[in-house]
Amino acid sequence: MSITVVGSLAYDRVKTPFGERERMLGGAATHFALAASFFEEVNVVGPVGDDFGSGDLEVLATRGTRIDDVERVEGGQTFFWHGEYGWDLNSRETLATELGVFAEFEPKLSDRSREADVLFLANIQPDLQRAVREQCAGARFSALDSMNLWIDTARDSLVGVIQRVDCLILNDAELRQLTEKPNLLSAAREVLSWGPRVVVAKQGEYGAALVTAESFFALPAYPLETVVDPTGAGDTFAGGFLGYVARRLSDGVDDSVLRQAMAYGTALASFNVEDFGTERMVGLSAEEIEARVAELRGFTHFEEASLAIE
Amino acid sequence: MSITVVGSLAYDRVKTPFGERERMLGGAATHFALAASFFEEVNVVGPVGDDFGSGDLEVLATRGTRIDDVERVEGGQTFFWHGEYGWDLNSRETLATELGVFAEFEPKLSDRSREADVLFLANIQPDLQRAVREQCAGARFSALDSMNLWIDTARDSLVGVIQRVDCLILNDAELRQLTEKPNLLSAAREVLSWGPRVVVAKQGEYGAALVTAESFFALPAYPLETVVDPTGAGDTFAGGFLGYVARRLSDGVDDSVLRQAMAYGTALASFNVEDFGTERMVGLSAEEIEARVAELRGFTHFEEASLAIE
Repeated sequence: MSITVVGSLAYDRVKTPFGERERMLGGAATHFALAASFFEEVNVVGPVGDDFGSGDLEVLATRGTRIDDVERVEGGQTFFWHGEYGWDLNSRETLATELGVFAEFEPKLSDRSREADVLFLANIQPDLQRAVREQCAGARFSALDSMNLWIDTARDSLVGVIQRVDCLILNDAELRQLTEKPNLLSAAREVLSWGPRVVVAKQGEYGAALVTAESFFALPAYPLETVVDPTGAGDTFAGGFLGYVARRLSDGVDDSVLRQAMAYGTALASFNVEDFGTERMVGLSAEEIEARVAELRGFTHFEEASLAIE
Repeated sequence: MSITVVGSLAYDRVKTPFGERERMLGGAATHFALAASFFEEVNVVGPVGDDFGSGDLEVLATRGTRIDDVERVEGGQTFFWHGEYGWDLNSRETLATELGVFAEFEPKLSDRSREADVLFLANIQPDLQRAVREQCAGARFSALDSMNLWIDTARDSLVGVIQRVDCLILNDAELRQLTEKPNLLSAAREVLSWGPRVVVAKQGEYGAALVTAESFFALPAYPLETVVDPTGAGDTFAGGFLGYVARRLSDGVDDSVLRQAMAYGTALASFNVEDFGTERMVGLSAEEIEARVAELRGFTHFEEASLAIE
């Protein structure tokens, strides 16, 4: 099986209570690929400027990720984000966003990227997502992320592409904003009525919830005493989630597989936030991931109670 | 086994997106007792004014709760709270708080209340909590709730009484504020270093987490499409949690019992929020509670993954 992700490749300037980085490799497609590459071959589609370093291309290619469709725009500048987090990391302020080469981006997919079995449309302008979705018409499982900016400025386009994917992965506050439904379950059911059969609500430090027509599942974040940098946690989660889905695709993506995929996504995200940018993910081992998935089972298990009430 | 709760008996004026009530029975001790009374005998300790209706006393006495230590203050007015919730119920504004008889409250416990096996110090001034803790020196399991007001104005007193209980049950934002630690795990471990052996962080719509020296456990809130009134959810949770602990006290309050207690607390809280004030809790059945506890096991279960990563 193979996976295609379209999304940003970026340089981030980030300050958290644990330090700062002036210019580190980031972007949704980068974080996604570093997680999904543990499971299956990943094709990255996205533009960079000629300021994008060859060392960063090597990081992107970790674990065999294919970078043929990383388009280098001569004279262009790589997407740049500058943000700062509050003391408990639950709030963050965007201080600058420079679109650079993303302003003129028109996704051009090679045959290999087009023929992927699993597709992730990371958070970019919804019309671009739709163009890619149409190029990858044969994908057997497709998922999409978005953000409040597109809900505010391009809601119709966004709803249009959501109708064409199997799975929406969105922050829970944005899920409420998108649907104008006040809580998780009513918001998720609204999205299910549009077309997708799976909704994943990302809940930051509280973990994530999965809603289908038949089932509800929730998993806490892996508990850490120190979170160094939350940047990219959501895309890393998506990479673990869809990577596991791709690995199990021939078995059929049933409720059991989706729940396990949630656990892999959660475990991978927990490593991502332990250090700045991509620093923790490059050298991570499969054994470390498996160990956290097993721990997550323990963190959520309780024994059947003998009837306690008379 | 028996349980004593000291805390507020109140009238609440509440507005939510689903309606409003001008004056309904509320208060931490009320919500706690309506949940804990499913498990063991509850003694309620707290003051009311002579405006407190006999019908409301009857509600308080549901399922055999003892109201001998409900002190009626002649000429006094019952504690009154007026609040309004935002559209997604995650924000609320307090519009009025009238202490009434609570301003001069000095807890006086009967022998029966003093000799309870389990003690819950609901959110009241920490020096009052400490006075009750000392009167109930023989309690085999004691727990405490508090709020940001006391962290701001009486932190030393609050820490002093926390050192003398087995379990702290607190909103997660207040846990961070109390400990000045930026995340759940570091905050909980700080409290464990003070004396308690159990910390429960209430996380509102996200559920609750349990931290001990040896273990971490988290449970989502029971998913509802419509939450009518969140008032009292935390105290209802505490009533279900400590009610179950009391029921299992002779077995020893080990990790397995604490996790099941989290499930009963979570299930009970989910009923409480389905209607205004105490309206859903009075006629609730044991079978309804057991059914949601069983559902919660399903909502958090995932099968062991065959090693997915090569």
